[in-house]
Amino acid sequence: MAKEKKLVEAITSMNEDFAQWYTDVVKKAELCDYTSVKGFMAIKPYGYAIWENIQHELDRRFKATGVQNVAMPMFIPESLLDKEKDHVEGFAPEVAWVTHGGLTELPERMCVRPTSETLFCDFYSRDIHSYRDLPRVYNQWCSVVRWEKETRPFLRTREFLWQEGHTAHATAEEAEERTIQMLNVYADFCEEILAIPVLKGVKTDKEKFAGAVSTYTIEALMHDGKALQSGTSHNFGDGFAKAFDVTFADKDNKIKHVYQTSWGMTTRIIGALIMVHGDDSGLVLPPRIAPTQVTVIPIAAHKEGVMDKAYALKEELAKNFRTTIDDSDKGPGFKFAEAEMRGIPVRIEVGPKDIEAGQAVIVRRDTREKITVSFEELSAKVGEILETMQKEMLERARAHRDAHTYTATNYEEFKDILANKPGFVKAMWCGDRACEDKVKEELSATSRCMPFEQEELSDVCVCCGKKAKKMVVWGKAY
Amino acid sequence: MAKEKKLVEAITSMNEDFAQWYTDVVKKAELCDYTSVKGFMAIKPYGYAIWENIQHELDRRFKATGVQNVAMPMFIPESLLDKEKDHVEGFAPEVAWVTHGGLTELPERMCVRPTSETLFCDFYSRDIHSYRDLPRVYNQWCSVVRWEKETRPFLRTREFLWQEGHTAHATAEEAEERTIQMLNVYADFCEEILAIPVLKGVKTDKEKFAGAVSTYTIEALMHDGKALQSGTSHNFGDGFAKAFDVTFADKDNKIKHVYQTSWGMTTRIIGALIMVHGDDSGLVLPPRIAPTQVTVIPIAAHKEGVMDKAYALKEELAKNFRTTIDDSDKGPGFKFAEAEMRGIPVRIEVGPKDIEAGQAVIVRRDTREKITVSFEELSAKVGEILETMQKEMLERARAHRDAHTYTATNYEEFKDILANKPGFVKAMWCGDRACEDKVKEELSATSRCMPFEQEELSDVCVCCGKKAKKMVVWGKAY
Repeated sequence: MAKEKKLVEAITSMNEDFAQWYTDVVKKAELCDYTSVKGFMAIKPYGYAIWENIQHELDRRFKATGVQNVAMPMFIPESLLDKEKDHVEGFAPEVAWVTHGGLTELPERMCVRPTSETLFCDFYSRDIHSYRDLPRVYNQWCSVVRWEKETRPFLRTREFLWQEGHTAHATAEEAEERTIQMLNVYADFCEEILAIPVLKGVKTDKEKFAGAVSTYTIEALMHDGKALQSGTSHNFGDGFAKAFDVTFADKDNKIKHVYQTSWGMTTRIIGALIMVHGDDSGLVLPPRIAPTQVTVIPIAAHKEGVMDKAYALKEELAKNFRTTIDDSDKGPGFKFAEAEMRGIPVRIEVGPKDIEAGQAVIVRRDTREKITVSFEELSAKVGEILETMQKEMLERARAHRDAHTYTATNYEEFKDILANKPGFVKAMWCGDRACEDKVKEELSATSRCMPFEQEELSDVCVCCGKKAKKMVVWGKAY
Repeated sequence: MAKEKKLVEAITSMNEDFAQWYTDVVKKAELCDYTSVKGFMAIKPYGYAIWENIQHELDRRFKATGVQNVAMPMFIPESLLDKEKDHVEGFAPEVAWVTHGGLTELPERMCVRPTSETLFCDFYSRDIHSYRDLPRVYNQWCSVVRWEKETRPFLRTREFLWQEGHTAHATAEEAEERTIQMLNVYADFCEEILAIPVLKGVKTDKEKFAGAVSTYTIEALMHDGKALQSGTSHNFGDGFAKAFDVTFADKDNKIKHVYQTSWGMTTRIIGALIMVHGDDSGLVLPPRIAPTQVTVIPIAAHKEGVMDKAYALKEELAKNFRTTIDDSDKGPGFKFAEAEMRGIPVRIEVGPKDIEAGQAVIVRRDTREKITVSFEELSAKVGEILETMQKEMLERARAHRDAHTYTATNYEEFKDILANKPGFVKAMWCGDRACEDKVKEELSATSRCMPFEQEELSDVCVCCGKKAKKMVVWGKAY
């Protein structure tokens, strides 16, 4: 019992210290670990299994919209990075530079890709000739490097895994359509699979991607009331195409520049999964993304027939669900705590008395509800519970977000909410960067996005009192 | 017709200039392209789709043996690379060095991983404590960088995609078992899925991996008689464990070093696919790996009912096979040539006369055999043909290899074969590196491996005449 208690006690309570709770969960659920490479993490099997499920589901959704996967080089020669002015200004300060190949100094240094717009543009400039070659809807799964000063597992690391889609189109309209289409793919994925409700909107100029005409974003609210940008989709217009001379012969025989987009989702989203659904016992995973959906835990495993039955149940359940069995020699309490720490949606407890009564106990990870069902009904009931759980986790997350979304119509109110009520704050904005800078400086909050669903909360900017142009959702962010 | 002829003529004949034929196929089948990053390639959608199929099939086979996927950092600090003497000597001359992060010089330079033994060892040194933590059977899918001087698409590029498995075990026996097990996974995969017969054996000390006790290899023979190392599996003994202090408390409470292995397969294998099966019309893909297994090509597409029937057949076939339809406005001859260039195993031709007769024509890519079948039997027949083709492609490749495997018992014979008969050469070897060096120097051939299936061809070394220890298979290699 001492050992079992220890496992549970080792996690800081989320209300006591949310940051420490997060670190504890990442470590105890064995998602990732620190390495000897400062600022870089090692993703462990359980964390990587979550990423594989994310990849699988996103990739399927991408391909359904015509996306094709490719692989571009990992390095960008400096002269290539330099071609688009805004882009290089945004990224040059945070890239890693390769200066030597083997024993010789390179004639031109190269950076490890922080993102691959420049490489795709360079490729497209040779690959696209005619309108028949359009659209190009390419994506790659890879890792990128950005030299962050402060790092945190999944949320901000010097290397992270992601996918980056890069498309080229014949018209501005088609590029805009694709930008929104991919934002919707991300939003649907987050809600349907990760049970994370997201706010869709467009970034202000201050917050948009270096080189983009517009950046669309999905923003999620974590349990502690801080925002997390969960996926972005950028419309580049023909800016990159002009910088890289990506042209095509159109149907009218005129040479035109293409219109481009890019969009990405990263391993950061695993941080969101942890911080939206987790509790003081550890991770809570939505069934659709959980590497293990059901785990069978035998009680009094040494008693005759228990292990046989446990294995039989495991086999039976494995037909429909990702199922494991904990047949280690640890005590049941310890196994329960471990299964909870890993956020396994459902555990099945089965002991001698259950077997005698022809039943097992299902325990839901999120609500801790215990349901006793007969062996015959077990599989059907587990399926039902997983579906209910998936649905209710989204509802709970949405209720939490709504309960932590506030409205401010003047600066005092705005200041008070940002100081005392962690969450999203809806407020009107004049459109001036000066106001964003002031809010950042004085209230440590940023404009998360201008939501697609606009409201007219007042006529004037919450910051300067001048005429308002847009409703912005503000917040403190990861 | 001019256009169609052009497409076919554009490929150099393989007998005329094999290297140029290879380059032509890579380019015309749209597998990959050169980039502005010297020595780096861009893998295009069709090439990447082949890689995805390889990944999917290998990953499935890995997991069936208990492999778990992880992600380690992309960079290796120099001090970490330096820890294992042989390893650093082997790799340091060919790595890319990162010296700056953002605007500041790094306190210690780091290389982009050329392979990740050092990173896994560093990780395992913290991750493994007790015999209960063993074995660790981890793998990662990523890309690595080696600063090659001469590069060729897929075969030798400064960056390549691969998987690298890294395992840790409690005993030397278990490590050896895993090394062989993974070699067999590669061999079975090559034969069953890629229809490439491989020779299994162990590398000589000269040819083994930097830091390994033994390196096992699978060697394939290309159409031009050159060998291609297609996958390797290394047993490290406890050498790395000692250098990195990877220890565990064993059941007897003693602290011991772990025994380690690593094994990898790369995008190079796509080069083997091209060079084992391709012909003067382009790629020929074994059905099990082909991104598109069947393509439907309508003849006289403008005639009433043709497109409808072609789409209906496509729908029908797509239930069982990876099927596409070429509904572009190109002529049928051009479409045939394109489908052949891409190595699509089977094409279905359907025109007005076929429809009238209730039948379609199946054309096999490898043999060009044409089979006319009724619509009702089409799907079953296609399935049968794909299976036959998969089997016969392996048989043909094996027959080619066997016909190009020679035996030499003295140096004159050996020299003559290596000069005039491209292929594998079986010959006895004394075990001295000096003989390997001489063969390399004088005959431009290397020891490919000491096959598991040894033969006693003679008592003496083919090179020096001293007492022979092993039969070696020699060859010129990619």
